[in-house]
Amino acid sequence: MESLIGRRIGVLDDGFVEVVDCMGDDAAIVQAARVSYGEGTKRVTEDRGLIRYLMRHRHTTPFEMCEIKLHVRTTMDCWRQWIRHRTANVNEHSTRYSVAIDSAQRTAPGQWRLQSKDNRQGSEGSLSAERGEHFSGREAEIIASTRQVYDERLAAGIAREQARKDLPLSTYTEAYWKIDLHNLLHFLELRMEPHAQYEIRQYAEAIGFQIVSQWVPLTWEAFLDYRLGAMSLSRTEIGLLSLLHAGRGVEAVEEMQVAGWLQREGDICKPSREAREFAAKLQRLGLSPPWQT
Amino acid sequence: MESLIGRRIGVLDDGFVEVVDCMGDDAAIVQAARVSYGEGTKRVTEDRGLIRYLMRHRHTTPFEMCEIKLHVRTTMDCWRQWIRHRTANVNEHSTRYSVAIDSAQRTAPGQWRLQSKDNRQGSEGSLSAERGEHFSGREAEIIASTRQVYDERLAAGIAREQARKDLPLSTYTEAYWKIDLHNLLHFLELRMEPHAQYEIRQYAEAIGFQIVSQWVPLTWEAFLDYRLGAMSLSRTEIGLLSLLHAGRGVEAVEEMQVAGWLQREGDICKPSREAREFAAKLQRLGLSPPWQT
Amino acid sequence: MESLIGRRIGVLDDGFVEVVDCMGDDAAIVQAARVSYGEGTKRVTEDRGLIRYLMRHRHTTPFEMCEIKLHVRTTMDCWRQWIRHRTANVNEHSTRYSVAIDSAQRTAPGQWRLQSKDNRQGSEGSLSAERGEHFSGREAEIIASTRQVYDERLAAGIAREQARKDLPLSTYTEAYWKIDLHNLLHFLELRMEPHAQYEIRQYAEAIGFQIVSQWVPLTWEAFLDYRLGAMSLSRTEIGLLSLLHAGRGVEAVEEMQVAGWLQREGDICKPSREAREFAAKLQRLGLSPPWQT
Amino acid sequence: MESLIGRRIGVLDDGFVEVVDCMGDDAAIVQAARVSYGEGTKRVTEDRGLIRYLMRHRHTTPFEMCEIKLHVRTTMDCWRQWIRHRTANVNEHSTRYSVAIDSAQRTAPGQWRLQSKDNRQGSEGSLSAERGEHFSGREAEIIASTRQVYDERLAAGIAREQARKDLPLSTYTEAYWKIDLHNLLHFLELRMEPHAQYEIRQYAEAIGFQIVSQWVPLTWEAFLDYRLGAMSLSRTEIGLLSLLHAGRGVEAVEEMQVAGWLQREGDICKPSREAREFAAKLQRLGLSPPWQT
Repeated sequence: MESLIGRRIGVLDDGFVEVVDCMGDDAAIVQAARVSYGEGTKRVTEDRGLIRYLMRHRHTTPFEMCEIKLHVRTTMDCWRQWIRHRTANVNEHSTRYSVAIDSAQRTAPGQWRLQSKDNRQGSEGSLSAERGEHFSGREAEIIASTRQVYDERLAAGIAREQARKDLPLSTYTEAYWKIDLHNLLHFLELRMEPHAQYEIRQYAEAIGFQIVSQWVPLTWEAFLDYRLGAMSLSRTEIGLLSLLHAGRGVEAVEEMQVAGWLQREGDICKPSREAREFAAKLQRLGLSPPWQT
Repeated sequence: MESLIGRRIGVLDDGFVEVVDCMGDDAAIVQAARVSYGEGTKRVTEDRGLIRYLMRHRHTTPFEMCEIKLHVRTTMDCWRQWIRHRTANVNEHSTRYSVAIDSAQRTAPGQWRLQSKDNRQGSEGSLSAERGEHFSGREAEIIASTRQVYDERLAAGIAREQARKDLPLSTYTEAYWKIDLHNLLHFLELRMEPHAQYEIRQYAEAIGFQIVSQWVPLTWEAFLDYRLGAMSLSRTEIGLLSLLHAGRGVEAVEEMQVAGWLQREGDICKPSREAREFAAKLQRLGLSPPWQT
Repeated sequence: MESLIGRRIGVLDDGFVEVVDCMGDDAAIVQAARVSYGEGTKRVTEDRGLIRYLMRHRHTTPFEMCEIKLHVRTTMDCWRQWIRHRTANVNEHSTRYSVAIDSAQRTAPGQWRLQSKDNRQGSEGSLSAERGEHFSGREAEIIASTRQVYDERLAAGIAREQARKDLPLSTYTEAYWKIDLHNLLHFLELRMEPHAQYEIRQYAEAIGFQIVSQWVPLTWEAFLDYRLGAMSLSRTEIGLLSLLHAGRGVEAVEEMQVAGWLQREGDICKPSREAREFAAKLQRLGLSPPWQT
Repeated sequence: MESLIGRRIGVLDDGFVEVVDCMGDDAAIVQAARVSYGEGTKRVTEDRGLIRYLMRHRHTTPFEMCEIKLHVRTTMDCWRQWIRHRTANVNEHSTRYSVAIDSAQRTAPGQWRLQSKDNRQGSEGSLSAERGEHFSGREAEIIASTRQVYDERLAAGIAREQARKDLPLSTYTEAYWKIDLHNLLHFLELRMEPHAQYEIRQYAEAIGFQIVSQWVPLTWEAFLDYRLGAMSLSRTEIGLLSLLHAGRGVEAVEEMQVAGWLQREGDICKPSREAREFAAKLQRLGLSPPWQT
């Protein structure tokens, strides 16, 4: 961990994350748990076992005993999402006090993502690099012209707090971001998942795989097992799976039809969104959906 | 819901919960979600479907748009656990300003619970009513004598803030407790689960089944399905279940032995705590554990 | 208050604030305080007196018992400051799910503010309307061209989450913002003060003078007296003022020189920033600074 | 600071506070402020000046960049107040998992405080040691008998979570308590003030004078000057003081009568509680109240 402090890990075309300082480690979590649980945990001889137990049973307070302070550089657009995690301490570069950072995120021709048909908040696939060329060119122009407008205002003596008003969201900003490990893991769980936006996912993965994994390796392992790699089955799904296990797939399909998960159209069944999510879980569990697709 | 306001729901021998006021309902959640997701959600024609989608995908902020204010009366012991939920607004009866409430929780002879062997923080079974008789008698004595000491101090002019110092934790206190629905559901998820202490569980169940279920019925239904009645499978458990589905139970058992989940002792396997938790999940899914017990 | 719900109060050129719902009022604060302070407050016969007492002595929890939900429309730039107040519930219009609002804040020729010389984070005075003409024209161009780029991307099927990246900070966004009264007053105290940026100050003043003053009039009056209109004297300033009251102005000046508040330059004294702040306080108290300026 | 880590500072008869770990110092506050305010603060050459500026102008976020973890041992009664500060991370000794600590706070014969006449939540003066003798004896008895009841329950196999129910509030508990410097200063401001209860004040003073003063000496000095030793004048008080400075004391008295601060009774004036608070401020400023007492 020592070797991580002060080392910038590049993210996106001009962003980074860097550890400024940290407090505690896997041992501090164990130490705090033992204050809470006292003599009772003497039997748990292994730190690893205790940390896994805490993670599995959602004993979250011992993880709050570790704290990390990062210096991050990201776009204002990405920061808009980031800052929604309220349980952190933040000092952001102020564009009232100082001139805005002269850098904005740029998109390579092959990186223009297409709107997902399936998921209103997502993207899938991308424009061809040929078509993307045009958009990358336009992007360069608009970044240049918005900056020009900004600089011209400053040169005329207009207040920084007002001059900045038309800067693009792609403008980079910097911040010190300090958070405890429990809340950091929550951030990572939400922002590492496939539906998180690409940009913030890059930051979350850098923080997770390159920083947290080094800082608290036992906690990281438990997090991957019990949180990031875990699957939640709803009460309904548990019932359906039990039917499948009992060889009663026909009943399961009937129940799904009653619940509106499947719409029979001739021989095949059109699954609802929730049914498709269930099918994906079945696949991960090595089973096929019981309806014909 | 209107009919709930001002009605005291009794809990324990002398406690209660009572709705003082509330803001929002299922419709307010939908309304807030539609501000966030805008035109995009017009297609979701049904409120119920949207609320279930939000709950399933952990879109928590719309649930924060509902707020409830309860008047509760509980023991100081129970309150010690309750107050650990930090995201609430609280006004508690002050025993610096006022005389302490003259009531303490009493235990019937048949209600003395035994220490769980299996779970260091739990209880199971109870003393016989005959043996309990003794302890209920002793309890009455100690409650009486601690109060006597308190009253005697007050009579001598000793400051309330100091006179209270030896009141028993079983003394009742009252508070206004105001919380948003998202955080209330989190409270309920933790405090309604079987391992929560009996006393606070009574409050959580009263709030859940008698209040929240009336206040936001669609949310409550989704909560039961996706949260309270849900099951989480760890990455390891997903792998083991896939092996079982593929008819490779022997391999699963081998993996569990390697991971330390099973200790072979002659013909039978001694499961670790985590293995027993897995077995309970298998049972809920209609399967038997693959090892001999 | 009823009459406020659903009425839009215009702010800036195309923003607004609107009460969606509220819980509690002055009477609810008194009610909560009486739970805390119990019999002890029976003597305080007047609600007004009790509310003023609570405000004066920073008993903040009773004010947390009131909650308000606003629908606001403001610029992303302004929202960047607003969202830094963490103790609120928020649902913001998502530009991942939906197309961005087609409106950006525009500046009239006479409204271009100049950078303050004195205060690195402020503005003072403004460009002449003639000179401002140029900047308002440039602003219209850049707002039009950034929107054109955005629309062109959407038309090509680029994902909304990426298309938005170069929208200007002046783009309007909307949110539901729900907060308790104690935290709202803290927001207002910080954002109504003269050094707050003009734009957010307009929102704070609209919320304060047009909403809170109607909603909880007794609390609002106490807030103006004990918070917004109050003055804080540091320990050093208290000492200096005592010297002035004792007719020992010369000593006061000497102490200020020793502390580095005054730099003598010939006959006159150059005051430090802290000394000038002290002089402003003296003036408000009807006194002149004891040094020659 | 290094020398403080792991050293127990005794508080009350059997409590303590001890630094387990800390992150950051005065320099970290300056570093964070410079990220926020960027180039703008290069002119502020001195760290001390910058820290004082931040404290004076309530720029609180840089102080959040420091974090401290304490191990504390205090009574459950005192902890009930302590835990009301919600912005901290906590791991408390669990009396569900473990046997309760066998120690309760005891009161020396001369330390029984009398109820304040003036302040419903305070104490003033104390019983004579002779009279106190009786109450200290009774206290010893009740502490012994409550413990006996507890031990007897445990011996009979009653669950720890239930056996504890009649432990007195004076029972000691231990916790890890982790908090950022900004929130710690807020805690200290409230708990070091004369109206805070004696017991928690002992902890606050130990933390303030023995720990924070060593950890962040520049911040501590600024805190004493701008927060703990500061005085707030309400808008009304500012107006009255201006009248006094202008030699218009008679008018001031008239205004106070109109506002209900003074009740004339023959030749003398009976001041309200707020008027007495104002008189105390005047005295601190070297002035006498303008009314006859």
